[in-house]
Amino acid sequence: MNIILVARDELQGDLLTLGHRRAEHIVKVLRAAPGDSLRLGIVNGPRGRGRIESLVRKFPFSVTLEVEWEEGGGRRPDLDLILALPRPIMLKRILSQVAALGVGTIHLIHANRVEKSFWEAGLLEEEEWRTHLLLGLEQAVDTVLPEVVLHPRFKPFIEDFCPTLAGQHRLRLLADPGGALPLARAPIPGEGRLLLAVGPEGGWVPYELDKFTEQGFLCCSFGPRILKVDTAIVALHAAVTALRQRQGEAPLPG
Amino acid sequence: MNIILVARDELQGDLLTLGHRRAEHIVKVLRAAPGDSLRLGIVNGPRGRGRIESLVRKFPFSVTLEVEWEEGGGRRPDLDLILALPRPIMLKRILSQVAALGVGTIHLIHANRVEKSFWEAGLLEEEEWRTHLLLGLEQAVDTVLPEVVLHPRFKPFIEDFCPTLAGQHRLRLLADPGGALPLARAPIPGEGRLLLAVGPEGGWVPYELDKFTEQGFLCCSFGPRILKVDTAIVALHAAVTALRQRQGEAPLPG
Repeated sequence: MNIILVARDELQGDLLTLGHRRAEHIVKVLRAAPGDSLRLGIVNGPRGRGRIESLVRKFPFSVTLEVEWEEGGGRRPDLDLILALPRPIMLKRILSQVAALGVGTIHLIHANRVEKSFWEAGLLEEEEWRTHLLLGLEQAVDTVLPEVVLHPRFKPFIEDFCPTLAGQHRLRLLADPGGALPLARAPIPGEGRLLLAVGPEGGWVPYELDKFTEQGFLCCSFGPRILKVDTAIVALHAAVTALRQRQGEAPLPG
Repeated sequence: MNIILVARDELQGDLLTLGHRRAEHIVKVLRAAPGDSLRLGIVNGPRGRGRIESLVRKFPFSVTLEVEWEEGGGRRPDLDLILALPRPIMLKRILSQVAALGVGTIHLIHANRVEKSFWEAGLLEEEEWRTHLLLGLEQAVDTVLPEVVLHPRFKPFIEDFCPTLAGQHRLRLLADPGGALPLARAPIPGEGRLLLAVGPEGGWVPYELDKFTEQGFLCCSFGPRILKVDTAIVALHAAVTALRQRQGEAPLPG
């Protein structure tokens, strides 16, 4: 926890009282004492610092801080993801990892190779996925909570919903090991929003690839190695980010 | 398991008999039947296919295949890693993920913020880490087993061992969130071996940064977000790979 995130309605003026997980973390992991100053943030709001006024070091843990907001809110990351719904245990890790890496909106969609039972996972309740996103933000010192949108049917997503996104993204990429275009050759812009679609274990089926292509997605490959979905998502996010940073940079002198 | 990996001495001419984990996987996950053809590979050797001659579908599982080698061996990936030894549970996942992404040699080193107890982990026995590397290769359809070298003391590693690597790598990169040079601006060559050093949770200490710099490492940052070590390693591997693919590409026409 590199920043402690709170909801706006937890504040009472300049005072904030934390219990449960966050208080226990402050006591046991940070081993903080009265007078110590901790990095704080309001979810979808500014970052700042809190000075510990008092704490209860035993169960039920409790910490009271006097807070001061220093900075404006963070910027919404300009990469959005479409993910074929992964199995719940993997989705947990993916949510916190992509929140740490930075993502605007995560569209979780159905695909042919997604098991129908995955849609019954408790993790798809907002209070559940929110927890895992917050873990990622706390790690990365960010306050901007990614949006999550569920699309349990593929056809309405691709035919009806996708066109409504039109104009929001400067580029739409679809990752597929069979993609003819190497990702490093994709015309990735240095600026502007980008949409990246990553398939399920076993990949997209040809019908899905066709449908994405009809919607203007560019089918790219990041090499012949078959990766697990969680590894692939982190790798693709980082590769796209590196390529757009490279693109956005002024040429090196000399 | 996208390829079944075997040791050379498991072969009896063109016949191969598998038991335990691999046989159980063939029976239960692949649900294979006699006559089916499976992708096979010899560790540090060629890939090929095996046709199932017979199988025992119950414990103790057993599968006999007739094998045929089709291709030469894979190429050793031209990225080597230096990792400050992570905690064992994280190291397991890292080993299989970097083996899947492709890595030549993994140097596991001590650093100030590595807990001494991590060096007592059973995972540091060869038969243990080998298992996790093989999982990654099986996922990525590769046969080339990464080397693992343990360096339980930082100073001998950086002062005595590092210079012996001289000339093996065209570029030495050190990842640090405080690095002045953005990774996307690093002079990453399209070809040739590369060495990438990734620090422990909490980062390198200034003494370590100085020592790496003395050894010609370029200190690079991949942005201000603080990532967990396992996320950071996958992200940095992918970012470097994307940047060198981009560098290695001929300019786009037009």
